[in-house]
Amino acid sequence: MPASTPAPVRIAILGPGTVGTQVVRLLTEQAEDLASRVGAPLEIVGIYVRDTAAERDPLIPRALLTDDVDALIAGADLVVELMGGLEPARSFILQAIGAGASVVTANKALLATHGPELFEAADAANVDLYFEAAVAGAIPLVRPVRESLAGDQVQRILGIVNGTTNYVLDEMTTRHLGYDVALKQAQELGYAEADPTADVEGHDAAAKAAILASLAFHQRVALEDVYCEGISAITAADVAAATESGHVIKLLAIAERADGGVTVRVHPALVPLAHPLAGVHGAFNAVFVEAQAAGELMFYGQGAGGAPTASAVLGDVVSVARHIATGGKGPRESNYAVLPVLPIGAASTRFQIRMNVPDRAGVLASVAETLASKAISIETVRQQAGAAGPGCAELIISTHRAPERDLESTVASLRESAAVNSVLSVLRIEGE
Amino acid sequence: MPASTPAPVRIAILGPGTVGTQVVRLLTEQAEDLASRVGAPLEIVGIYVRDTAAERDPLIPRALLTDDVDALIAGADLVVELMGGLEPARSFILQAIGAGASVVTANKALLATHGPELFEAADAANVDLYFEAAVAGAIPLVRPVRESLAGDQVQRILGIVNGTTNYVLDEMTTRHLGYDVALKQAQELGYAEADPTADVEGHDAAAKAAILASLAFHQRVALEDVYCEGISAITAADVAAATESGHVIKLLAIAERADGGVTVRVHPALVPLAHPLAGVHGAFNAVFVEAQAAGELMFYGQGAGGAPTASAVLGDVVSVARHIATGGKGPRESNYAVLPVLPIGAASTRFQIRMNVPDRAGVLASVAETLASKAISIETVRQQAGAAGPGCAELIISTHRAPERDLESTVASLRESAAVNSVLSVLRIEGE
Repeated sequence: MPASTPAPVRIAILGPGTVGTQVVRLLTEQAEDLASRVGAPLEIVGIYVRDTAAERDPLIPRALLTDDVDALIAGADLVVELMGGLEPARSFILQAIGAGASVVTANKALLATHGPELFEAADAANVDLYFEAAVAGAIPLVRPVRESLAGDQVQRILGIVNGTTNYVLDEMTTRHLGYDVALKQAQELGYAEADPTADVEGHDAAAKAAILASLAFHQRVALEDVYCEGISAITAADVAAATESGHVIKLLAIAERADGGVTVRVHPALVPLAHPLAGVHGAFNAVFVEAQAAGELMFYGQGAGGAPTASAVLGDVVSVARHIATGGKGPRESNYAVLPVLPIGAASTRFQIRMNVPDRAGVLASVAETLASKAISIETVRQQAGAAGPGCAELIISTHRAPERDLESTVASLRESAAVNSVLSVLRIEGE
Repeated sequence: MPASTPAPVRIAILGPGTVGTQVVRLLTEQAEDLASRVGAPLEIVGIYVRDTAAERDPLIPRALLTDDVDALIAGADLVVELMGGLEPARSFILQAIGAGASVVTANKALLATHGPELFEAADAANVDLYFEAAVAGAIPLVRPVRESLAGDQVQRILGIVNGTTNYVLDEMTTRHLGYDVALKQAQELGYAEADPTADVEGHDAAAKAAILASLAFHQRVALEDVYCEGISAITAADVAAATESGHVIKLLAIAERADGGVTVRVHPALVPLAHPLAGVHGAFNAVFVEAQAAGELMFYGQGAGGAPTASAVLGDVVSVARHIATGGKGPRESNYAVLPVLPIGAASTRFQIRMNVPDRAGVLASVAETLASKAISIETVRQQAGAAGPGCAELIISTHRAPERDLESTVASLRESAAVNSVLSVLRIEGE
């Protein structure tokens, strides 16, 4: 160790808020320990807020507040962006990179939208851009996938990356609640927002899927490349049928290699009870990774919340600050591979199709023929008379794995078939 | 990017074997991708084996084999040690560090025994010593705990870190097999060795517990500091009683903060069914981490096997090679904290005590009094007449949390009590 005290790493924080407040607290409380891990003290040189007078959190030291973002960025080695949203976060990050500062961000919307631009800028300026907190909150996921699996090949990622929808589906499953009741309860407990659209329609999960896919396949995946279906159409009957067949329904973010490219999608799926993802309860998140050599891995933890997210931000701050203090740089993100992102039709999956059918002879034969004509083979058939009303039966068919586009056209044919009163639901089966 | 091709990173592999063969395969197959991630090509300069003529694996190129370890180490930037055992692995690693090479190792026995010496040598020489594969095989665990949680405080680690014992206990639980039958089956399937002692008595798990505890608490924990109990005394009756009370039995490696230090122990434990560790089946491993800010995290995957372990080794090789090619160094391991390792008596836990008692009035009162006299409070009591033989009953008591030393002396008193025929089993309850 050098005899003289090393120069401190100067940290600017953009946007306090719940996460920023916890980051400031941890940086202050653990200062000595962090300095020893980094090899230099960490100094908060300022906290940017638009309106310094409006900031009232008692944990944020008044003296550090500033509304002069240009001066703050110019005097920092490391900028921690916790503002959220696209602008001005994007401009501030580019300004920091341009000034030679490294950046840590928790901003998933920004990375899903402008990730390639930001990573290229960081690589061109030879600075770090770290984002552990942007994907699955506190769960260390970015670092393992970028670094631990750097010598391996990821085949598929299946993630429960939205706590709100997992809470709602878990309550529907374990306490037999309807969708509306479970959602209302989630809102009362603070797990869901007053306008839950971004969560329940899968938009939040889609942004994380884009980042996860970019990471796992070294590929530019934009938000608009992600096929997205939410959970608002899931009924108590879907959940009951899932339970009956030994599955639970989870909203999954899926990125996987397909023939000639990768597919990226978010939708509710039937997951077998014995699969590790089936045991992820409440608002927890988990990401299941299948890699060629490593086999099956799963990362589990809290996907949101001030302190958990701050923990992930701090881990990044320590890594980046160590690079600043002692040399080195994290992995480059901008050397993208050439695997194209394919439309969802190219994905290979299994369907479970629930139908209301007339309760008479010949119906099953007719339905089976429709599937056979599309070269879709049937794995299991279950029929319950009466469940669907007088004179009707409920027919539940699980298919073997087939291209999504063939399954879709099969369902379209079933909807038109005289042997089918109505298609009640179509759910993909994943994790087998 | 520089116009000239960067110098290759020269890699020496010590000991091929199952893992080494897979490492060589991955380094060869993924050469181009790895070079782009590292920023320089990776070149295998030689593979050390004691007897070059005896090496017959078709995947190992003959031309790279050498028995001249001194020349091999002298010409390498990065030495990958996959020999296992204490010597000569320890001497070779020290020799490599002395020559200025960085080291990647998968050798848990060596790190549990000589870790501090090796880490101090690496820090003094300013080279990397990486060991992701030494703790839980393919599971990225070392990097997340060392780096992602670097700004957080780990409170407790609960790990299923031995696949053999998890397989045996899982078979006993899900298929109601006896211990001997389940172990025999594990041996037939290759999950357990002919002499299973190191696995079933917990020695393998204890070595991993020592490394995990060192990592999580920045503390020197030696193998002899780890309290260790295996699973060979677990009976079908224990498993049935666990199921009855809503638990599964798992062999856990536990490291946790206690008053004034840390405790490190390996023993079978009752884990509630809803706990994420309860869903870890077969020979899989998982490590559950409780951190102050991040909350609950779990890392799941394969704990052994050639390809999975090779994946973890490769991740380390890429990180270390990037440091060699572009500058930088991983986290220091030798700046140890001052938390002492406490004896197991200082741990705080809960006991479930199964007893054979006379089936007569006054027995429960007498047992309750014994516990009260030691200030141990009872959480639940269950009694089954007849289960323990004519005139006898089985009494199952779960205690509240208390210091291990008080629980132990309570059990000793129960064994001597006239109200107790015999103590059938004592199991700790963890994960609540």
